[in-house]
Amino acid sequence: MRIDMRKLFIGVDLGGTNTKIGCFNSDMKLLANTSVPTQADMGPEFVANIIAETILQIVKQSGGSMEDVQGIGIGAPGPADLKRGIILAAPNLPMFRNVPLSMMISNRTGRPAILENDANAACYGEYVIGAGRGADEMVFVTLGTGIGGGIVTKGRLIHGFGDNAAELGHTVIQMDGRLCTCGQKGCVEAYASANQTVNRAVEALEAGKTSSLSAIYRDKGRLTSKDVYEQAAAGDTLAKEITEVTAKVLGVLCVNVLHFTEPQKIVFAGGMIAAGDFLLSRIRHYFNQYIWTLKPENIEICFATLGEHAGMIGCAALAKTIPH
Amino acid sequence: MRIDMRKLFIGVDLGGTNTKIGCFNSDMKLLANTSVPTQADMGPEFVANIIAETILQIVKQSGGSMEDVQGIGIGAPGPADLKRGIILAAPNLPMFRNVPLSMMISNRTGRPAILENDANAACYGEYVIGAGRGADEMVFVTLGTGIGGGIVTKGRLIHGFGDNAAELGHTVIQMDGRLCTCGQKGCVEAYASANQTVNRAVEALEAGKTSSLSAIYRDKGRLTSKDVYEQAAAGDTLAKEITEVTAKVLGVLCVNVLHFTEPQKIVFAGGMIAAGDFLLSRIRHYFNQYIWTLKPENIEICFATLGEHAGMIGCAALAKTIPH
Repeated sequence: MRIDMRKLFIGVDLGGTNTKIGCFNSDMKLLANTSVPTQADMGPEFVANIIAETILQIVKQSGGSMEDVQGIGIGAPGPADLKRGIILAAPNLPMFRNVPLSMMISNRTGRPAILENDANAACYGEYVIGAGRGADEMVFVTLGTGIGGGIVTKGRLIHGFGDNAAELGHTVIQMDGRLCTCGQKGCVEAYASANQTVNRAVEALEAGKTSSLSAIYRDKGRLTSKDVYEQAAAGDTLAKEITEVTAKVLGVLCVNVLHFTEPQKIVFAGGMIAAGDFLLSRIRHYFNQYIWTLKPENIEICFATLGEHAGMIGCAALAKTIPH
Repeated sequence: MRIDMRKLFIGVDLGGTNTKIGCFNSDMKLLANTSVPTQADMGPEFVANIIAETILQIVKQSGGSMEDVQGIGIGAPGPADLKRGIILAAPNLPMFRNVPLSMMISNRTGRPAILENDANAACYGEYVIGAGRGADEMVFVTLGTGIGGGIVTKGRLIHGFGDNAAELGHTVIQMDGRLCTCGQKGCVEAYASANQTVNRAVEALEAGKTSSLSAIYRDKGRLTSKDVYEQAAAGDTLAKEITEVTAKVLGVLCVNVLHFTEPQKIVFAGGMIAAGDFLLSRIRHYFNQYIWTLKPENIEICFATLGEHAGMIGCAALAKTIPH
């Protein structure tokens, strides 16, 4: 019987460019972490070796040994067979096709490993120690280039039959509405993602609308959602109109989220939350305008608090759920 | 140790008019059942007495004794505090306000009891031995006067923070669309419930559209959704248009259901499924038309098979989940 009985949990957030790896104790206190280039173009075997070696290093840095590691959680992008721990395909990891990553990491480290979708991992991180803390019923929405999500009910992530649940960006709020890149019409993402917020602004400019965005578009040759939010905050009429539609669509998404799984909290994350209270207060405004009048709803709509570490933290927390 | 070791489970489906009570063995085989007038106007104590006495009778009819009863599941309409087993209010049970029904039944029978929302109970019944059998990820949609639902993930019902999850009829598919009785705009129910299918037909007739529905409306002074479906099946143009919108809205609901909890099966139930393959095939058609093209989706969209007994069966199955 060892006197210093330590239990360590590893979170691995595998990204297209960099991979974040953290070592946590059972209270989810971060003991050591690092970020390494993924080098996805070197192939899965190489990447798995790098991950395993890096885990070894940060466990040492944490003052522990591999025997202390109770589990490793790995978050990865793209469609996966989570039950079997296999990455099926990933747009940002082109050489990863049918890669049994959790087994590869487990074999190299001698410790149990679990695979999770990256949005779900970030959702779980926010649930465990972030903005969703204490809310066993929670929904997570990532506002980035696209719109993704995660759903927690009774303290557990929902996965769905084919591990593709919580594709909240592709729920329809306008039947026969704006065409989405997914092939559907009227998806939330077709209006409210960073890309589509910009696209709607550019379309309006090209249709001849006057706006302070025109000069920016002309100078840079492009716009970002940040430009749109900044000009809206500065009072530009078109930028405000574009932003209002984004907020309204997200407010209606919140109505639908409430009626599907009725969470206590809806947590927005991703690059677009940099728009700050300006966006958040309008989402809340539209939720209150569009929600039913049958009974009062006290759902909390808020922004994520863990930033880019949410996925790594969530993975470590998921490692705690591995049955031994 | 008794030689004839029997385990019995009771399902109670409390309705505004009648209450169905069934006694099942652990294989969910129905041993005895009955339907008694609820007599809701006599108040909760009276109703609880009737239920308890009826349970005693059907357990006897099943050849068992109350000691064999492992649990009692009670399905009830309206908002409830399910964790505490309390009916908060119910439109069809006007004297039931803050009634701790599961405790009242448990006290009268000496057996553990559990309360469930009636739509959830029917959902669980279809999941356990009906159309959703074997699908641990399943969504249930009741098409009646209104539209309700139930969601099963990993073999368990979702309840939500305030026990109000799966209000699928009040998810929005048309932002700023048709006004719903709930106060929202563009809900699924605002188009596709039996009531609203009829309302849309009546509105069209009153706007001067010609249709074989006119004579029926004139003769009876009203229409039913059955009239609309029958005339649509008989080839009436207006009735077909009305029905197509109902099917299209339900098809888009299925798209949203897929992207929320990604079930293996979506099971439609309620009075409107009497419309038969005519309606089902159009719902499937619109699902296939509106679903994304990113990857093939093999979700099964089907009708319920247990009819009016689904709730009673689901309650008995839920009684099996009571921890001892």
